[in-house]
Amino acid sequence: MTISMHSASVPIFVRMLGNMLTWLDKAEAHATAKKFDTSVLLATRLAPDMLVFKEQIQIACDAAKFGVARLAGVEAPKFEDTEATLDELRARIRKTIDYVQSVPPAQIDGSEDRDVTVPRRAGPMIVKGEPYLKQFVLPNFFFHVTTTYALLRHNGVDLGKSDYLGPLK
Amino acid sequence: MTISMHSASVPIFVRMLGNMLTWLDKAEAHATAKKFDTSVLLATRLAPDMLVFKEQIQIACDAAKFGVARLAGVEAPKFEDTEATLDELRARIRKTIDYVQSVPPAQIDGSEDRDVTVPRRAGPMIVKGEPYLKQFVLPNFFFHVTTTYALLRHNGVDLGKSDYLGPLK
Repeated sequence: MTISMHSASVPIFVRMLGNMLTWLDKAEAHATAKKFDTSVLLATRLAPDMLVFKEQIQIACDAAKFGVARLAGVEAPKFEDTEATLDELRARIRKTIDYVQSVPPAQIDGSEDRDVTVPRRAGPMIVKGEPYLKQFVLPNFFFHVTTTYALLRHNGVDLGKSDYLGPLK
Repeated sequence: MTISMHSASVPIFVRMLGNMLTWLDKAEAHATAKKFDTSVLLATRLAPDMLVFKEQIQIACDAAKFGVARLAGVEAPKFEDTEATLDELRARIRKTIDYVQSVPPAQIDGSEDRDVTVPRRAGPMIVKGEPYLKQFVLPNFFFHVTTTYALLRHNGVDLGKSDYLGPLK
C-alpha cells in the first residue's frame, strides 16, 4: 500500500474532527462545573482581530469540506454558518465527517497532478492538487483545529495532548 | 508523480519552519517598537500548564526532526534545548530545516509499511510509518507551529493568515 491523496487527507480530517467532538464534551463539562453559559466560550478569541471560537470550528470544517471537494472535482455542499450552541457545532462537525467520508477515495486519488481552482480575494488561483493539499488545505485545517484547542485551554478547559492527538493506532 | 512519504512530510516541515522564521522577525520588530525585551515573549504561555513559547518552537523542530529520522530509520541528531534568545531559536529552526533536507528522499519513501518505534512515557510503541506520520507527526508538528503563532498573536505581534501559510505556489 502506498500513500495517496485520499489517504493523506480524509483520514486526517476525520480523526481530528472526531477528536474535536471530545473537546466540546469537556468544554461543556467545564462550563457546567464553573456555572457559566457555553455561549461565553463560543465568543472567545485569542486576539481582538482573530476569529472567535465558533468560527474556528466552522472554518476547520470548511477547510476539510472544500479541500476534499476541490481535490475530487465536485461541488461542496453549502453549510450555513448559523451555529449558536455547542450542540449545533457538534452537528456541523458530524456532517463534515459524513461528507468527507462520502466522497469515493478513487475520486480523490490521482488529484496530485490535477488543476484545482482556489477562490481567493484577489481572484481565483489555479494550482496542482498536491501543493494545494500540502501548502494550503492541511496547514489551514490544522490552524483552525489547534486554535480551537488553544482557546479551550486558555479558558481553563481540562484538555491534554492526548485529547488533541487521540489514540495512536 | 504520485504523493510519497517524503513528499507528504519534508516539504511541509520545511515550508512551515521557514514561515516561522518570518514570524520571529515580526516578533522582534514588535518588541523593539513596544520597547520590551524579547525574553518576555520566550516565556509566554496560553495556559499555566502549557509549555512556553520557546518550548513550542523547540518541540515543533523536534517533531519534524524525529518524524523524518524515524521514518528513514536513522538516528536523529541531538539538539540541546538551550535556546535563550530569538537568534538562537532561529538557529534551531534553520538546523532543523537543514537536517530534514539532508535525509535522502528514497530513505523516507516506502516507509508507509515499515515499523517505526515511537518512545512513549508508557514504553516504546511500534506502529507503521503511515499512521505514525498521519496520526502523530503531522498533527503534533502543526500543534506546536500553530501554538507558536497563537502566542505571538495573543501578545500583539502583527501577523496574519498569509504569514502563517506563506505564499501558495
